[in-house]
Amino acid sequence: MKVRIHVSLKPGVLDPQGRAVHHALDGLGFAGVEDVRIGRLIELEVADTTSDEVLADMCEKLLANTVIENYRIEKVAA
Amino acid sequence: MKVRIHVSLKPGVLDPQGRAVHHALDGLGFAGVEDVRIGRLIELEVADTTSDEVLADMCEKLLANTVIENYRIEKVAA
Repeated sequence: MKVRIHVSLKPGVLDPQGRAVHHALDGLGFAGVEDVRIGRLIELEVADTTSDEVLADMCEKLLANTVIENYRIEKVAA
Repeated sequence: MKVRIHVSLKPGVLDPQGRAVHHALDGLGFAGVEDVRIGRLIELEVADTTSDEVLADMCEKLLANTVIENYRIEKVAA
C-alpha cells in the first residue's frame, strides 16, 4: 500500500525557507506570488495490513514535529 | 489561489534521507515498511490570474531540479 504523508508548518510558525523561495521568485520576475510555505512530502510503501493508528503513530513519533507541524495522511490506490 | 506543488525524487535516484527515515522507523519497531522516499511540498498563494504555464515555469526554473526530481502541480479550491 502506498501512503503519502504531507507535513506542513502550522500557521504562524516562521518559515525562513519559504521566505527565501518567495524572494527568489520575485527576483526571477514572477509577479503575483503572495505567500510561499515549504513542507515535506513523505511517500511510504507499507504492508496492506498497516492500520491508520500505526500510520498516525509513525507521524507523531518520527515523521512530523507536532509542536510546529501539521500532518495529513493520504492513502494512494495501488 | 492556493497551489500545492509536490516535488519528489525520480525513481532510481538515491534518497539517503528516505533511507535514514526507513532505518529509524525500523528502529522504533514499525514493521512492514518497505520503502520511504522524501520530497518537498511547496504551498504557494498566487494571484488568480496566474496561468498553468507560469506555474510550470516556476517549477522548472526554481522549485524543482528537473534533472533528478519530478513535480506535480495541484490547484486547491479556495
